[in-house]
Amino acid sequence: MSDYSSQLIEQRRILHQWPEEGWTEFWTTAYIVEKLRSFGYEVLLGTKIINPEQVFGRNVELVEEGKKNALARGVSEELIAEMEGYTGAVGLLDTGKEGPTTAFRFDIDCVCVQETANADHKPNKEGFRSQHNGFMHACGHDTHTSIGLTLAKWIADHKDELKGKFKIVFQPAEEGVRGASAIAGSGILDDANYLFGSHISFMADSGEIVVAPYGLLCTSKFDVKFTGKPAHAGKEPNAGRNALAAACNAVVQMMGIPRHGGGMTRINVGTLRAGEGRNVIPTHAHMALEVRGETSSINDYMTEQVMNIVEGISKGFDVTYEVSQMGAAVDFTNDKECSDIIENVAKTVPSVNKIIPDGNFGGSEDYSVLGRRVQANGGKAAFFICGADRAAGHHQGTFDIDENALQTAFDMYKGIVEKVNK
Amino acid sequence: MSDYSSQLIEQRRILHQWPEEGWTEFWTTAYIVEKLRSFGYEVLLGTKIINPEQVFGRNVELVEEGKKNALARGVSEELIAEMEGYTGAVGLLDTGKEGPTTAFRFDIDCVCVQETANADHKPNKEGFRSQHNGFMHACGHDTHTSIGLTLAKWIADHKDELKGKFKIVFQPAEEGVRGASAIAGSGILDDANYLFGSHISFMADSGEIVVAPYGLLCTSKFDVKFTGKPAHAGKEPNAGRNALAAACNAVVQMMGIPRHGGGMTRINVGTLRAGEGRNVIPTHAHMALEVRGETSSINDYMTEQVMNIVEGISKGFDVTYEVSQMGAAVDFTNDKECSDIIENVAKTVPSVNKIIPDGNFGGSEDYSVLGRRVQANGGKAAFFICGADRAAGHHQGTFDIDENALQTAFDMYKGIVEKVNK
Amino acid sequence: MSDYSSQLIEQRRILHQWPEEGWTEFWTTAYIVEKLRSFGYEVLLGTKIINPEQVFGRNVELVEEGKKNALARGVSEELIAEMEGYTGAVGLLDTGKEGPTTAFRFDIDCVCVQETANADHKPNKEGFRSQHNGFMHACGHDTHTSIGLTLAKWIADHKDELKGKFKIVFQPAEEGVRGASAIAGSGILDDANYLFGSHISFMADSGEIVVAPYGLLCTSKFDVKFTGKPAHAGKEPNAGRNALAAACNAVVQMMGIPRHGGGMTRINVGTLRAGEGRNVIPTHAHMALEVRGETSSINDYMTEQVMNIVEGISKGFDVTYEVSQMGAAVDFTNDKECSDIIENVAKTVPSVNKIIPDGNFGGSEDYSVLGRRVQANGGKAAFFICGADRAAGHHQGTFDIDENALQTAFDMYKGIVEKVNK
Amino acid sequence: MSDYSSQLIEQRRILHQWPEEGWTEFWTTAYIVEKLRSFGYEVLLGTKIINPEQVFGRNVELVEEGKKNALARGVSEELIAEMEGYTGAVGLLDTGKEGPTTAFRFDIDCVCVQETANADHKPNKEGFRSQHNGFMHACGHDTHTSIGLTLAKWIADHKDELKGKFKIVFQPAEEGVRGASAIAGSGILDDANYLFGSHISFMADSGEIVVAPYGLLCTSKFDVKFTGKPAHAGKEPNAGRNALAAACNAVVQMMGIPRHGGGMTRINVGTLRAGEGRNVIPTHAHMALEVRGETSSINDYMTEQVMNIVEGISKGFDVTYEVSQMGAAVDFTNDKECSDIIENVAKTVPSVNKIIPDGNFGGSEDYSVLGRRVQANGGKAAFFICGADRAAGHHQGTFDIDENALQTAFDMYKGIVEKVNK
Repeated sequence: MSDYSSQLIEQRRILHQWPEEGWTEFWTTAYIVEKLRSFGYEVLLGTKIINPEQVFGRNVELVEEGKKNALARGVSEELIAEMEGYTGAVGLLDTGKEGPTTAFRFDIDCVCVQETANADHKPNKEGFRSQHNGFMHACGHDTHTSIGLTLAKWIADHKDELKGKFKIVFQPAEEGVRGASAIAGSGILDDANYLFGSHISFMADSGEIVVAPYGLLCTSKFDVKFTGKPAHAGKEPNAGRNALAAACNAVVQMMGIPRHGGGMTRINVGTLRAGEGRNVIPTHAHMALEVRGETSSINDYMTEQVMNIVEGISKGFDVTYEVSQMGAAVDFTNDKECSDIIENVAKTVPSVNKIIPDGNFGGSEDYSVLGRRVQANGGKAAFFICGADRAAGHHQGTFDIDENALQTAFDMYKGIVEKVNK
Repeated sequence: MSDYSSQLIEQRRILHQWPEEGWTEFWTTAYIVEKLRSFGYEVLLGTKIINPEQVFGRNVELVEEGKKNALARGVSEELIAEMEGYTGAVGLLDTGKEGPTTAFRFDIDCVCVQETANADHKPNKEGFRSQHNGFMHACGHDTHTSIGLTLAKWIADHKDELKGKFKIVFQPAEEGVRGASAIAGSGILDDANYLFGSHISFMADSGEIVVAPYGLLCTSKFDVKFTGKPAHAGKEPNAGRNALAAACNAVVQMMGIPRHGGGMTRINVGTLRAGEGRNVIPTHAHMALEVRGETSSINDYMTEQVMNIVEGISKGFDVTYEVSQMGAAVDFTNDKECSDIIENVAKTVPSVNKIIPDGNFGGSEDYSVLGRRVQANGGKAAFFICGADRAAGHHQGTFDIDENALQTAFDMYKGIVEKVNK
Repeated sequence: MSDYSSQLIEQRRILHQWPEEGWTEFWTTAYIVEKLRSFGYEVLLGTKIINPEQVFGRNVELVEEGKKNALARGVSEELIAEMEGYTGAVGLLDTGKEGPTTAFRFDIDCVCVQETANADHKPNKEGFRSQHNGFMHACGHDTHTSIGLTLAKWIADHKDELKGKFKIVFQPAEEGVRGASAIAGSGILDDANYLFGSHISFMADSGEIVVAPYGLLCTSKFDVKFTGKPAHAGKEPNAGRNALAAACNAVVQMMGIPRHGGGMTRINVGTLRAGEGRNVIPTHAHMALEVRGETSSINDYMTEQVMNIVEGISKGFDVTYEVSQMGAAVDFTNDKECSDIIENVAKTVPSVNKIIPDGNFGGSEDYSVLGRRVQANGGKAAFFICGADRAAGHHQGTFDIDENALQTAFDMYKGIVEKVNK
Repeated sequence: MSDYSSQLIEQRRILHQWPEEGWTEFWTTAYIVEKLRSFGYEVLLGTKIINPEQVFGRNVELVEEGKKNALARGVSEELIAEMEGYTGAVGLLDTGKEGPTTAFRFDIDCVCVQETANADHKPNKEGFRSQHNGFMHACGHDTHTSIGLTLAKWIADHKDELKGKFKIVFQPAEEGVRGASAIAGSGILDDANYLFGSHISFMADSGEIVVAPYGLLCTSKFDVKFTGKPAHAGKEPNAGRNALAAACNAVVQMMGIPRHGGGMTRINVGTLRAGEGRNVIPTHAHMALEVRGETSSINDYMTEQVMNIVEGISKGFDVTYEVSQMGAAVDFTNDKECSDIIENVAKTVPSVNKIIPDGNFGGSEDYSVLGRRVQANGGKAAFFICGADRAAGHHQGTFDIDENALQTAFDMYKGIVEKVNK
């Protein structure tokens, strides 16, 4: 086993033991930063890579807890301070030779799932189970992070043979499609000539590469709060402003947003918490909702309808409202140049036995936000799937993947670098 | 039978044969005008007694049809022109002697009810059935008009024994509480020291006078129109603006206007007509609604909620709206001075055998708008019930009343004039 | 010009002058019957070709008016009686030689559109404008009928050269997809080995044939009536049962029927008429609605949701309901054998200059119901488009088509007969 | 200070320090039981006085916590076991002489309010502040309990001078009007000839007695749960059954329950908790609601409408439901005989300086359920207010009352016993 091979597995298993949810990955970020610096990278943190105005779904209390956990696990106060409250990191390496700026994106957060206690579960058998109760790398981002770090090492090791610049993005909060907009909004990728990203497993098995998955769904996530005025429900219901009734009517109207002739739409008000007591006119209501659309413009149509409804309800029920965006992903199509690179590299990777040109992703990935940003600035971008056998579906406590796939993914990225920067 | 007695019956039966609905009483108005002028009254018409900005629920097509009918029945074009499109009349008589200005109000419109064909029905037996198909004086306004005209005659006949001035108001469009606001708004009653009005039958039988009925309900009537945008319901529902959905959500919200701790409220969307075709996004919706409140301020609360809802729905569904007030009545309490006059007069009227101090009217009457206007200008006002046995309830095709009650009512008014102006 | 050519135009222009809406085509049916009988066809009428239990959207008053109009235009009472109240006709011809039973379907009703008075409009210029005020053959069914009759004549003329049997279906009430289910339900097509149908113009221009249009949408049309109980809206609103409120809540819920993961859905409540008067709790509500689905099973899902909502609302508002199906169409795919025949015939028709393999029909056609019935019984079916230049879009008062297309369509059908039955 | 006087204050202050919410009053019940037994009463507990089928709003987890707390505070396991899980107690005393059965009702639970930390607050100054964090006797039930126990002592002490039997009811869970129905349902009061109860402070100040407060509102409290089926909101929303949407539509409909012509109605959905996650079709919804009516039959009307809506929604949205009654109070009018007794006694109590015949209670009290049960069985019942100055309104953390009122209340009850049983 090569050094890179063992690095891939070791790092992944270390990361697997301390999974952190979106915007709380302080220990994970520290781990990444130390590695990158040890490889010779310049590392950007905090508001250098995060636009605070486009940060979605970040809970301040959880952030503070995340910092505390990181400190308890030995991260220095200085490093935490450097992060300015925002997780994630970007490693920069300049070969000194003229050439393209090539960027890569790896996501680092976990999901809120309890890892199975089943003795047969490989992380249990081999001793790298999550020690963070209620949290688990059940979506494979531990492998993504490890692949990114190993790629960074390889690039640094082979700097002399390469040209151009490298930007390796370790993105926080992909779950809930919360983190990419803040990275994109920082402008850190605006000079990238290429951006590559991938997901492990998901829709393909070990040995398979899906070159250009389609059907990355546009979605916007919002929290809506209505605030009314309390009153005794018996004595003077007229004196209250009923936030619960406002929310319920909003839900009813949102469910009824007209279908779109141009393609698929979705609306879901996933949770509603409203009211304080049985005999009080409800004063507070909090809805978590999401819309989807087959294209960005259809997604925008859904969003606009939601906003109209919220505003109209606010007027009709004389309640105030607050809308917070909690996540965003868009549709995305690989640039052909990049897909060709991926396909050609795949042909050279020994562990790849099947190259699948496309396939329906059928979900949302906020890589799309970064990819579209790069494309908007004249760069080329692509997202591929590196297949991996899995023990159970993503986001389940029994999820685990064939670790051989890390080598495949690493070989893919190494090949891409060689194609673009050699 | 005195001349006044026969006048009462004759006029009533003539009026009964050509009932006209609110704002279309051109023939009825002409009949009143000719009588008043023949008695020596100055007669005011049109915008002298009607403020066009406070005209509620007047349908221009029906107005034109009413004019045509009047012309066909022999009314002169000159007289129609004098009315300026507005029905109703006010007769003025000045005794030339100092004294109070005493006003009376009689309402002249009918209801849209088909008179029964039953041979036993007195108007059928005695040959004064409605000849206006689909319309009937089933609320007794024919008797009100006849009482008013007979009172006018009596006052003119006894002018020398009386002091002060008289204003006898023949109000259009009481049904739907549509007409009084326009009369009030003209200012014609602003100098009245007294205003008396009454209803026949309703809550009392022949021989009974109810001096001060309470529970005249505040109400506001509105028509609301939403206008959206059509689109093919299959091809691109998103391109439409759904006025039907807007209206339905408005109804749902209006039904849910919170009860009022201060007293009774009501809301009814009585009719809704929306949409053009099964497969077209509906573009037009028209609602006829009313609110009620135990007091004016509660009625205002209900109105404000309705307006908020309409505005909010307009925003939420991106449709335009138009609200037209179609009627208004307020709560009303007799001035004690006037109630005392009524009670004292009642004691002197031979056909009165029971004086009832009060009782729950439990409905709306737009006399209230006129009475409150007089009170607001420092005058005194009262509304009483002159009981009458009836063959069936008001607004039914078999409605008919004991004609003896016309004499009782006339005697009451005559007595009031004698008390106030002698 | 051949006899068939002049027959095509003459018949079309006669039919164009007396358009009749669905289920009222008594004169049109009589015209067809007389022609078919004169050509030697056995003609089936009434319940022989119509299953009364699957008749959708038939208005009894309009039916009676249609009969009266037909009598006034010289149709005999005997023929009207033969129709048993149901329009449409099927002509049967047996060559006496063994061979397939080949069926054709032509639809005969018009739309409720006022034909333009514009002098440039060809029917005006050439004197064959609709004389039936408010009705117009603005969808080309006059041409369909004429093509069907001319085909019938040609088959009869060439009977000796042909084998098998012919069933020529003249279907009523295609508009609103109302008539096909009743024809299908009669079983008249259950022995057909082939069924061909077509639409003129629509998505193609003169000289073009679309062999296999896809995207024939599944749809179901329903009328829903709620019946409540009246009550005075002021006195005792609790005593009423509010059909308007029931309907509005039903609309609100129907608009919110969840999207379907399997494909496109649509819902439209196109019209709502509810309530009797402003101050009466509304007792009657009548909704006209339609659902659509990308496939039959998705359409069934929508229908089931609608039915659940209606039933639930009926319970919640204590109102009764009545649901009437007013129309139905399903999705449909040509049998390849038939598409091949169409394509091969098209190659032989001189006026065809472009053969288009497929294209999105994007609407509903109840040919689909007949085609699926034939397929379900083991037959083969297909629907094609015979292109025609048009002056304006379908269903507009200025619609008119290039009459040369009738020859093209006739040649197509003739060619199909020769392919299948020669 | 008499022994009774000091007993009144001492007991109240002990009780004040360990307030327990409804159905968890295990320590309080134990305190009462020990006192009653020491006075010589037979004490009934558990299902002897509680009908489990009419227990409203009892949370099993809180019950278990209440037991644990009581054990921790020294209550014996035997006594807890005797209670059979239900709090409350009834003390029985038979004088052995023929005479009426006289019952009294005192409520014993607290409210979930945090007692103020303000140093000026008397319980803080004098060291009897609540030691049960988050709970407080802020409605005066500590005084009620102490008055009841002192009355019990006095009756026992004076047994020889009295006739008939006594039943002293210590009722749990008055807050939320949850406890009375279970006591009534046990039948324990069915043989009572008299039932007296009272509230301290509330609508009157120290020295005042309100003999017959009116306006005890009928109310029913319900929890409604809808259960649907989860599905991925993006992939197949149609596969879910949306409990949140069901609940929102139920709220919308409930808000719109028609007003009642017979009197005041109220509806409030006070809280709604629904849904599990933003991108999952919501599976669970939980609503806490209440209805009110001016009379029992109007309250029943409201309840019936709510039930119809719940059932209808369940059908329309294909979700299951569960309705739990959480509380009930009815309207109540004192028997004149009892009011006379109260008034006459009040005249003899030295500290009473104002006797108020009636006044609007304007809230709900489940004494009404017990009083009506006694009346239904031929007994006489009454509820009065014993005024007391208060530091702040009821249910506030700064609530405190003038302890002199305990003596007044005790004197009132003593006087009633003397009137009825001497």
